Amino acid sequence: MAGPSVHPIEAPPMMATENANANAMPRHSLKDTQGMPGTLGGFILRSLQFSFALISLSVMASTSDFPSVTAFRYLVAAVSLQCLWSLSLAIADVYAILVKRGFRNSRVSSLFSIGDGITSTLTFSAACASAGITVLIGNDLNDCSQNHCSRFETATAMAFMSWFAASPSFILNFWTLASK
Amino acid sequence: MAGPSVHPIEAPPMMATENANANAMPRHSLKDTQGMPGTLGGFILRSLQFSFALISLSVMASTSDFPSVTAFRYLVAAVSLQCLWSLSLAIADVYAILVKRGFRNSRVSSLFSIGDGITSTLTFSAACASAGITVLIGNDLNDCSQNHCSRFETATAMAFMSWFAASPSFILNFWTLASK
Repeated sequence: MAGPSVHPIEAPPMMATENANANAMPRHSLKDTQGMPGTLGGFILRSLQFSFALISLSVMASTSDFPSVTAFRYLVAAVSLQCLWSLSLAIADVYAILVKRGFRNSRVSSLFSIGDGITSTLTFSAACASAGITVLIGNDLNDCSQNHCSRFETATAMAFMSWFAASPSFILNFWTLASK
Repeated sequence: MAGPSVHPIEAPPMMATENANANAMPRHSLKDTQGMPGTLGGFILRSLQFSFALISLSVMASTSDFPSVTAFRYLVAAVSLQCLWSLSLAIADVYAILVKRGFRNSRVSSLFSIGDGITSTLTFSAACASAGITVLIGNDLNDCSQNHCSRFETATAMAFMSWFAASPSFILNFWTLASK
């Protein structure tokens, strides 16, 4: 071994071991709250967002007359964006879990936070607009016989669920960003 | 003066002066960003929120047929709540400016943050739902001759403006809370 031959005291080997441990150890520490990017909780949140958005998109796209209402077209666009965003971040989370590293970079954190803020606001606004139309058709006009009320309601509810799953990600990311 | 008589060096008097200054000084320091509660910027934001919400409420309430649409009733309820909340916090801001103290209490900060989050989310969702209905009436059904389209649009736009003025308050409060 080509170790230091002069003064082979205890301290340097111990420090070296510690450094080695620090390098080998995954970056997951106590500060990594579940739900943040790069954790299993974060991956579950992303999967939920993606699934709900995908169900909402499929149900809405399966109705023949959604393009006649602007709010429903907007919902389709918003949940498509939410699908893409959640899917890509779910893949990033899987990668982070596999290489056992968290996202601690401040720039990445702020990018995730801004993206989450934009997509979740879009999804929420689209869900609200669709809910307004659905309630108008179902309760105010009582016109469900001619329209796919149940499908519109399902799509709206799924968009809301997607937003509920997206909010913790946004709040955790924003909190992490602010507390740095 | 009952100062320390032994070793009258420079350091203790300087520290005492600093402490005295810190106590006499108003709590407004460099950390008080404009727009936070208790600052002039915060008061201006609150006034804007209040004015826009009040205009939205008046315009919507002046139409005779708003109770026939659920989303418009919801808008009236949401902007009423926004009015009350913004008015009470504007009064709190005026008080804080008059006595020249900021709100540095963590509990007050979290209360403001949660309240801002709830009211701004309600206003935003109501504005989105109304926007969905307004666009449905105006663009999809082309039925503006029978409806007060311009008033609905004005009320919706004012609710959005109120939300735009409420967002900086919420983000600043949340940021302050998180960075503590």
